Amino acid sequence: MNDEFYMQLALDKAWEYQLLTYPNPAVGAVVTLNGTILAVEAHKKAGTSHAEVLALLKAYETLSKSTVDFDRMDAQKAHNFLHTIPKDFFSECSIYVTLEPCSHEGRTPSCATLLETLDLKKVIIGTKDPIEGHGGGMEYLKHCTSGILEEACQALIEPFMIWQKRAFVLFKLAQTTNGRIGGGYLSSKSSLRHVHQFREKCDTLLIGGNTVRTDRPTLDCRFTGGAAPDVMIYSKKDDIDRQMPLFTIKNRTVTVTDNLNFLEKPSFVLVEGGEGMLNALKEKIDWMLIYQTPKLSTNQLSYNIDMNLAFLHQDKKDVDLLLWSRRIGH
Amino acid sequence: MNDEFYMQLALDKAWEYQLLTYPNPAVGAVVTLNGTILAVEAHKKAGTSHAEVLALLKAYETLSKSTVDFDRMDAQKAHNFLHTIPKDFFSECSIYVTLEPCSHEGRTPSCATLLETLDLKKVIIGTKDPIEGHGGGMEYLKHCTSGILEEACQALIEPFMIWQKRAFVLFKLAQTTNGRIGGGYLSSKSSLRHVHQFREKCDTLLIGGNTVRTDRPTLDCRFTGGAAPDVMIYSKKDDIDRQMPLFTIKNRTVTVTDNLNFLEKPSFVLVEGGEGMLNALKEKIDWMLIYQTPKLSTNQLSYNIDMNLAFLHQDKKDVDLLLWSRRIGH
Repeated sequence: MNDEFYMQLALDKAWEYQLLTYPNPAVGAVVTLNGTILAVEAHKKAGTSHAEVLALLKAYETLSKSTVDFDRMDAQKAHNFLHTIPKDFFSECSIYVTLEPCSHEGRTPSCATLLETLDLKKVIIGTKDPIEGHGGGMEYLKHCTSGILEEACQALIEPFMIWQKRAFVLFKLAQTTNGRIGGGYLSSKSSLRHVHQFREKCDTLLIGGNTVRTDRPTLDCRFTGGAAPDVMIYSKKDDIDRQMPLFTIKNRTVTVTDNLNFLEKPSFVLVEGGEGMLNALKEKIDWMLIYQTPKLSTNQLSYNIDMNLAFLHQDKKDVDLLLWSRRIGH
Repeated sequence: MNDEFYMQLALDKAWEYQLLTYPNPAVGAVVTLNGTILAVEAHKKAGTSHAEVLALLKAYETLSKSTVDFDRMDAQKAHNFLHTIPKDFFSECSIYVTLEPCSHEGRTPSCATLLETLDLKKVIIGTKDPIEGHGGGMEYLKHCTSGILEEACQALIEPFMIWQKRAFVLFKLAQTTNGRIGGGYLSSKSSLRHVHQFREKCDTLLIGGNTVRTDRPTLDCRFTGGAAPDVMIYSKKDDIDRQMPLFTIKNRTVTVTDNLNFLEKPSFVLVEGGEGMLNALKEKIDWMLIYQTPKLSTNQLSYNIDMNLAFLHQDKKDVDLLLWSRRIGH
C-alpha cells in the first residue's frame, strides 16, 4: 500500500472528530512499521493530546505489549512519557499526519520537537500548517515529506482556516433520501447525539424564527448532557413567545435579531432550520451537514434552493448517512 | 489492526464490482504478511480469475519484486502458475476472503484446492458459500475461520442469492441531494459510464412507458461501447412510437408489455424510471442504486413513495455519491 492509503486512514479518523476539536483543527495520524499499521488516531478535543501523540502512545503500546497508566488525553503527561522512550524505539516506524506537526508551545507542548527527539524513519505530512507563526514544524524534522492527499487534508482544516477570520457557518439538515424534511424525527439516536455534540461546541446556534414558532424546540444538549448553546433567532419581527422551553434553560442567552453582523466575528456557528433559513443564509453558508435517513417518503415538506455543493466526506451514523459538503461559489 | 479491518478492505474492493460479476457473486480478498497488506483485489468478471487468485498473484509480485508475464484474468493460467510456487512461499501470509473459496471446478479451477496447496498461515472467511453443492471449501483448509463481518459479507452476495431463484431487481435513480430528478443530466460522466456497465450486464432493462414517451431515450451503452440491453417497456397501452432511436439499435429486442411475470425468471433486471415506475414496481424492487449529485435544486420534479431502506454501501463516483440500499419489508 502507498502513502495515500495510510494518509486516507488518518483522514477518515480525523473526520470522526470534525468540528468537535474546535477551536483546534481536525487532525488524524497513523503510525506504521514496515507497512504494518500500529495506530490510527485523531485529535479529539482542544487542550488535550494531539493526534500524533495519541498515535505514538498507541504504537508504543502495540510494540511493547503494554498499556500506559496515565491519562493519555493529558498532553503534558503524554509528552513527558514519550520523551523518556529510548531514542531508537521508533527508528523503523513512519508517521502519517494530515497536518504539519505544531512547532509552537500552546496549550500543549510542541509535537515537532517530540518527533525530532523520537527520530522516526519517515514523517509524512498531508498539508503544511497555513497559520502564520504555527508552521515550520517540518524544518525540525529529517526524512520529512509533505503534500500527500494535500487537497483532502486542506479540506479537512477548512473550518479552522475560516474561523481564524470570521464565523464558520455550518448548516445542518436532516432529511429522507428523497429530500423530505417533514414527518417527525428523521434521525437515528446516534445522529441526534452527534448534533448535540456540535451544539455543545458551537459559539452560537442560529435558527429561523419560523422554525421556533412552529416547532417550539428546546435546542438543548440532552442527548450528550452538555451545556445548551446560546441561541440567535433570526426573525424580522420580535413576536417570539418567551414562555416556550427554549427560553427556560439556565445559563444560556437567547437573542431575537434580524442582524447577521455577528457572523463577522471569528466563531463556530451552527445553523438549524428549513427552507426559509437556508435561503436567508444562502450566501453565508460555508458547509452543509446532511443527516440522510434510509427512507423515501410521501411527506410533502421539502426545501427549494439552487446551490452547488462539493461532497467532502461521507460516513454512516448508525443507520443514517452523514454527508459533509462545501457550498460552491464563494 | 484486527481481522475486521482487513475484511472491510476486501468488502470495499468487492463493492467496486458489485453486479458487474453477474452471474457470479461479488467477492473481495486481501493478503497480509504479519499485518502488512500485500494485496487488495476483487473478482471483476464471471469466467475470469477469482478474487483470491488475483490477490495471491499480486502478493506474489509484491514479495518476489517481479511481475507475472501472463494474462492474470485467465483463471487456468493463474492457477497453473500459483501451483508452481514453492510450498512455503506464502506460509507466513494470511488471506481474507469475503466468501468461502469455491470447492468445485466450474468455469475456473477450485480456489479451495489452490489454498490447500499453498498452505497459508490463516484463511479468514466472511461468510460460507450458501449455495448447495458450492460450499465445503473450508473443509479443505487448515487454520481457517469464518464469520468475520458476516452480515456485511452476506449483504454483498444478496443479489447472487436472489438471482438463483428469480429476477434480482435493481432500481436505478439519479437525483440531486434534495431529491429532485428533473432538470437535465444529473450525473457525472463517471456515473453514466457506471450505469452503462450495468446495462451491458443485465438481462433486461425495464423502463416505464411514460419515461419512453417523454424522454425518448436510446438506452444504449455508448459510454462503454458494449452491446445494448434488451428492453421491456412497461405500459398498459401499446402506443409507443416505433420510430424513436430505442427501436433502431441492432441485436436488441424491445417488448412493450404490462405483464411482469418475466421477473419470476432467474435474471438480473435493471430498472430505470421515475415516480410512476417506482410505484408500479414497489413490491418487486430488491435494491435501489441512487446516484446523488452534489447540488440542491429548485426543479420541482421529485418522486413520492413511502419506502424504508437500509443503506448497504456508499462510495464516490467522481463528484457524485453512489448510494446502495436494500428495500426493507419484503
